[in-house]
Amino acid sequence: MRALRLGMVGGGSGAFIGNVHRMAARLDGQFELVAGALSSDPGRSRQSGEDLGLPRIYADFTEMARAEAARPDGIEVVAIVTPNHMHAAPARAFLEQGIHVICDKPLTATQEEARDLAAACAASSARFFLTHTYSGYAMIRQARAMVAEGAIGTIRVVQVEYAQDWLTTDASSKQADWRTDPARSGAGAVGDIGTHAWHLATFVTGLEVEALSAELSSFVPGRRVDDNVQAMLRFAGGARGSLWASQVAPGNDNTIRLRVFGDKGGLDWTQDAPGQLVFTRFGQPRQILMQNGAGAMDAARHVSRVPAGHPEGYIEAFANIYAEAARAIRGEASTCPGIADGLGGMAFIDACLRSSQQNGAWVAP
Amino acid sequence: MRALRLGMVGGGSGAFIGNVHRMAARLDGQFELVAGALSSDPGRSRQSGEDLGLPRIYADFTEMARAEAARPDGIEVVAIVTPNHMHAAPARAFLEQGIHVICDKPLTATQEEARDLAAACAASSARFFLTHTYSGYAMIRQARAMVAEGAIGTIRVVQVEYAQDWLTTDASSKQADWRTDPARSGAGAVGDIGTHAWHLATFVTGLEVEALSAELSSFVPGRRVDDNVQAMLRFAGGARGSLWASQVAPGNDNTIRLRVFGDKGGLDWTQDAPGQLVFTRFGQPRQILMQNGAGAMDAARHVSRVPAGHPEGYIEAFANIYAEAARAIRGEASTCPGIADGLGGMAFIDACLRSSQQNGAWVAP
Amino acid sequence: MRALRLGMVGGGSGAFIGNVHRMAARLDGQFELVAGALSSDPGRSRQSGEDLGLPRIYADFTEMARAEAARPDGIEVVAIVTPNHMHAAPARAFLEQGIHVICDKPLTATQEEARDLAAACAASSARFFLTHTYSGYAMIRQARAMVAEGAIGTIRVVQVEYAQDWLTTDASSKQADWRTDPARSGAGAVGDIGTHAWHLATFVTGLEVEALSAELSSFVPGRRVDDNVQAMLRFAGGARGSLWASQVAPGNDNTIRLRVFGDKGGLDWTQDAPGQLVFTRFGQPRQILMQNGAGAMDAARHVSRVPAGHPEGYIEAFANIYAEAARAIRGEASTCPGIADGLGGMAFIDACLRSSQQNGAWVAP
Amino acid sequence: MRALRLGMVGGGSGAFIGNVHRMAARLDGQFELVAGALSSDPGRSRQSGEDLGLPRIYADFTEMARAEAARPDGIEVVAIVTPNHMHAAPARAFLEQGIHVICDKPLTATQEEARDLAAACAASSARFFLTHTYSGYAMIRQARAMVAEGAIGTIRVVQVEYAQDWLTTDASSKQADWRTDPARSGAGAVGDIGTHAWHLATFVTGLEVEALSAELSSFVPGRRVDDNVQAMLRFAGGARGSLWASQVAPGNDNTIRLRVFGDKGGLDWTQDAPGQLVFTRFGQPRQILMQNGAGAMDAARHVSRVPAGHPEGYIEAFANIYAEAARAIRGEASTCPGIADGLGGMAFIDACLRSSQQNGAWVAP
Repeated sequence: MRALRLGMVGGGSGAFIGNVHRMAARLDGQFELVAGALSSDPGRSRQSGEDLGLPRIYADFTEMARAEAARPDGIEVVAIVTPNHMHAAPARAFLEQGIHVICDKPLTATQEEARDLAAACAASSARFFLTHTYSGYAMIRQARAMVAEGAIGTIRVVQVEYAQDWLTTDASSKQADWRTDPARSGAGAVGDIGTHAWHLATFVTGLEVEALSAELSSFVPGRRVDDNVQAMLRFAGGARGSLWASQVAPGNDNTIRLRVFGDKGGLDWTQDAPGQLVFTRFGQPRQILMQNGAGAMDAARHVSRVPAGHPEGYIEAFANIYAEAARAIRGEASTCPGIADGLGGMAFIDACLRSSQQNGAWVAP
Repeated sequence: MRALRLGMVGGGSGAFIGNVHRMAARLDGQFELVAGALSSDPGRSRQSGEDLGLPRIYADFTEMARAEAARPDGIEVVAIVTPNHMHAAPARAFLEQGIHVICDKPLTATQEEARDLAAACAASSARFFLTHTYSGYAMIRQARAMVAEGAIGTIRVVQVEYAQDWLTTDASSKQADWRTDPARSGAGAVGDIGTHAWHLATFVTGLEVEALSAELSSFVPGRRVDDNVQAMLRFAGGARGSLWASQVAPGNDNTIRLRVFGDKGGLDWTQDAPGQLVFTRFGQPRQILMQNGAGAMDAARHVSRVPAGHPEGYIEAFANIYAEAARAIRGEASTCPGIADGLGGMAFIDACLRSSQQNGAWVAP
Repeated sequence: MRALRLGMVGGGSGAFIGNVHRMAARLDGQFELVAGALSSDPGRSRQSGEDLGLPRIYADFTEMARAEAARPDGIEVVAIVTPNHMHAAPARAFLEQGIHVICDKPLTATQEEARDLAAACAASSARFFLTHTYSGYAMIRQARAMVAEGAIGTIRVVQVEYAQDWLTTDASSKQADWRTDPARSGAGAVGDIGTHAWHLATFVTGLEVEALSAELSSFVPGRRVDDNVQAMLRFAGGARGSLWASQVAPGNDNTIRLRVFGDKGGLDWTQDAPGQLVFTRFGQPRQILMQNGAGAMDAARHVSRVPAGHPEGYIEAFANIYAEAARAIRGEASTCPGIADGLGGMAFIDACLRSSQQNGAWVAP
Repeated sequence: MRALRLGMVGGGSGAFIGNVHRMAARLDGQFELVAGALSSDPGRSRQSGEDLGLPRIYADFTEMARAEAARPDGIEVVAIVTPNHMHAAPARAFLEQGIHVICDKPLTATQEEARDLAAACAASSARFFLTHTYSGYAMIRQARAMVAEGAIGTIRVVQVEYAQDWLTTDASSKQADWRTDPARSGAGAVGDIGTHAWHLATFVTGLEVEALSAELSSFVPGRRVDDNVQAMLRFAGGARGSLWASQVAPGNDNTIRLRVFGDKGGLDWTQDAPGQLVFTRFGQPRQILMQNGAGAMDAARHVSRVPAGHPEGYIEAFANIYAEAARAIRGEASTCPGIADGLGGMAFIDACLRSSQQNGAWVAP
């Protein structure tokens, strides 16, 4: 199976997420990175590309999209790993050339950009993928499949949380700076990690959030975006839930937990032990389902690489998003977040902001 | 040190909480149970009293209060362990006789009873204690002391949850029946376990809930009280929080967790490992503080019985409430929930009910 | 049910284990402490007795045994909570008077004392109980019952460990001093905690240790007893095992873990979460069995006091030993370690010492 | 930085470890797989190579070594991922051509092969690397660095274990078949996983095993190799330890744990949470050190890819071995197991077999 030719926009030297994308793309040998415009600064783009040994380095994404589309051996898919406000423009440029796009989340910095991008997706022959990483974990796939087959019955309660502590103070860093700048990020914790929590909850349960009541806070003096999000959720069909996202919770490097309770059982997953899923049939002992182990379903095995007890982690989950994208591009069945998830996430952000501005009024995303 | 003479109202054979009170009273040898009206059914009261070898058995609490007050060796303190709607009347009867009261929570079934009882407390020379069990855990005392001395700085976020699964279906039992009967319980999960969560959060942080927005649900068909509570909390001083109480969460026998985050650090406690408290100074590794072990403060050691690594549990926490009551009765310094906590809990219940009826409007407890 | 009249030898003010015995005796209301010779120092014995409000205080155990036996309301059972070298003499004194004995472990400081005591037991109408505390945990009872009914098949491998760190340095304390004095303790870690590990393994599996190969070390300079024990075990029937006991393992307050593996499944218990038992049917997901919860058998429920999710701990386990002793004294069916367990433990200590002196030769206990 | 040209011997379709090597080689983009003799069956070798899109496919390793050495663009390094008895011959073939070798463990099936291979290493200009995967974990590197800088003082006790359950029955599989065939594996659990445990213990502590006493068992009827290993260890300098390796321990998918205790502190690591290292300074609370988080040293950060709280797992640990090999090949400083570790492992296996045959006599590896 030939590797797909991949390009990258953003992700110059020192970038966190750009390197994660590259590792994810490499892990299964399904992509070959051959071109990039890795920085908006041409010199840095060139240097970063050379450091990576990229065959083709561009000064900007516009030129890259045009040039690659014109080559017989041009890239077939591009990864967009820029800050949020720089997702829409390059994504559209490549979609217009019929080049598939793998884009970081949240979709964009503004609702308007999101709508434009959705229109570009609709008009393009190319596919659009959104890296909601955590949906790539095998045991999240397992949870989704179990819910779908009725293992926990009708869902009643969903508790989801995503907590970090790295923004507890106003210490500056490349990462912190753009993520706390409303112009570049669009929002704070609600966009950066709240969307992940929202996505995880809806991906696993298959339920839409019908309405939410949110309270966003900015605890750090001088911070211009939210750093803590509380929300109550009403799901279609009557389930209720709670979402907490925080970047000021000391003791949490990157804690993600999803619990789903139905009238027949419950599920509990946490990223701290991502290869485990705790499953309870009501009235019976809790079971620890293991990735690729006893009780693992095809949906989980399909995205597992090593036997049970050999931990897979964040990079593997990310690589699963890439692998699913590759399958989709090749015309195979695949489960990969796309533009609808991106629009959903933007609607979630917008709803949280609106509700919080309206003193927690229930609003529909 | 002479044991205090204790009486009991409620807690006949087969009752869960009555037996817990008795074990708690016995553990440290500070109480001697000598009288009881253990059931509203006189025959059952007699039989239960005989089973326990009680010296003095009464058919009802009214007679008991009068008779015991008249004896030179009458009880000095009484435990009220009846269903919620039967707390106020006996408590008042004993308070009026100058007999101290240790009462189960929530305070009463209605706000009106609560006010009457508070008036009786104010008018009595006797003391009133409320068994908010979980505040008796040594590492909860540790957490409270650490917050007080500024170990985590100014509090920003409080996450508290109390989840059970035993009411996932409508299966009947002595316990389930009165707890899901509004006439006897006053409310459902919000009163039965939500008040514990509320108390834990306020006890540890020392912060008042200024306003809350709640959504109560009754998921089980035919259930007449709430079985799931979501609430967002605004604390005095600006901290924000979330409270979840559920009795329909399969996989949770009796999960209680409190997390408190400040601008300098965080605390994480769960009843699953009650002798541990996870403490993080922001920017440093998490530490596992152990009951009676390294890092334990006087406030925790004071209510610990065995060396670190010898687990103490629920009964010990309950016994700590009794031990603190005994200290208070003897005129020693003591930290034990009382009528103010009871009124606070009732106000919390009432606020949750009002907010939920008003579609989650922010209301003050 | 009338409480049994209990006496105590040893356990004066400040003693750790004496107070644990008293709490264990009180918890279920089945014992009433009415007499004591709490210290070999008469003045301290008197003061300690008065602090406890004991009706009858004796200067020494000889007088106490005689006097109590002569009273119509004399004690029916006595707890021996002295250092190891002071177990045999008082135990014999009471047994000779027909008074039941509850004795701390290990049985004695020497093999000779152990044989004498066994003879006294055989000659007496009274019962002898040994407080192998950890066998009192409900989920240890569950494990034993599961092994007996074949839940894990034929046992192949047993891993048991008991690790502490309090003797990592040569710091002196009342506890440390007698436990590291060969004259008073008989041995070091092997007797103090190794016997607990040995007992737990044999109690749960029902298997005898046929031979063992041990290496005892004394890591702390100047220490006169062992502080670390490694042993390989051969069980009757072919199972193999490993035992580790250490008092110099920093990070272990009091870690006890037992794992048993058979040809059909495995069990894993640790005192850190004593109300859980992890059970694996080979080829199926691990299950977390909960005390008094789903999957709990009668053998476990019988020694449980509160519903699943309300942690019971060390004191409750100790109280279970007392409760079982009370049942036995009353002529009811009961499972409580006795003189045979005591002799077994002494043989285990002796075998470890012999093997270690013989460079790890396999010896029979 | 140009990727190194890599070849592979073994690892045809369906092989577990071959694919792991390929993922490890790809993850960081430092290797490019360009040639292979993936199976001893020429047809299967061809098909497997085509499935992987290999530019150059060989029928056997002899031809491959010769041909690749002759090409200007021939492979610079080869991965040997065959069963144990097929390590030595291909390794020697490539070493003789000056091509670096990355070889799976244990080194060989027999001591004789090991000596021959060591001689070939000594005679070659090329480097030899052994994939002791678990030494690649960041927090194992952290532990090693902490021990080296004296964080836990002088080491006294080392407890290491590696438990699996997949060979609990005699079910046949491609993996099981060669691993339980003495001719192809050399030994059973002691070689397959015992060497990993041995390596982990010596890698982290820097201590040699001076003598060991072992008991090997074959619990499954008909099994021709050991499936359970108990060993007591004497380290140079006086530390003592215990090693347990089992493939018949139901409930253990792949449990690896290392604990090291010194006179100043202790370390505890388990593969279930590989990004954590529990560190105790004696007398202080346990600390949870996190990969790339607070407390992480350069030795750990050096082999970490993503921020704290983003789990890295088995594949990343394996990739660290490859990355260290790449550094070594490029002449940079690097820590990667090599021929000495391989010989040490073979000596460990041999010592275990000898000791077990001599009824647990202490033997030197």
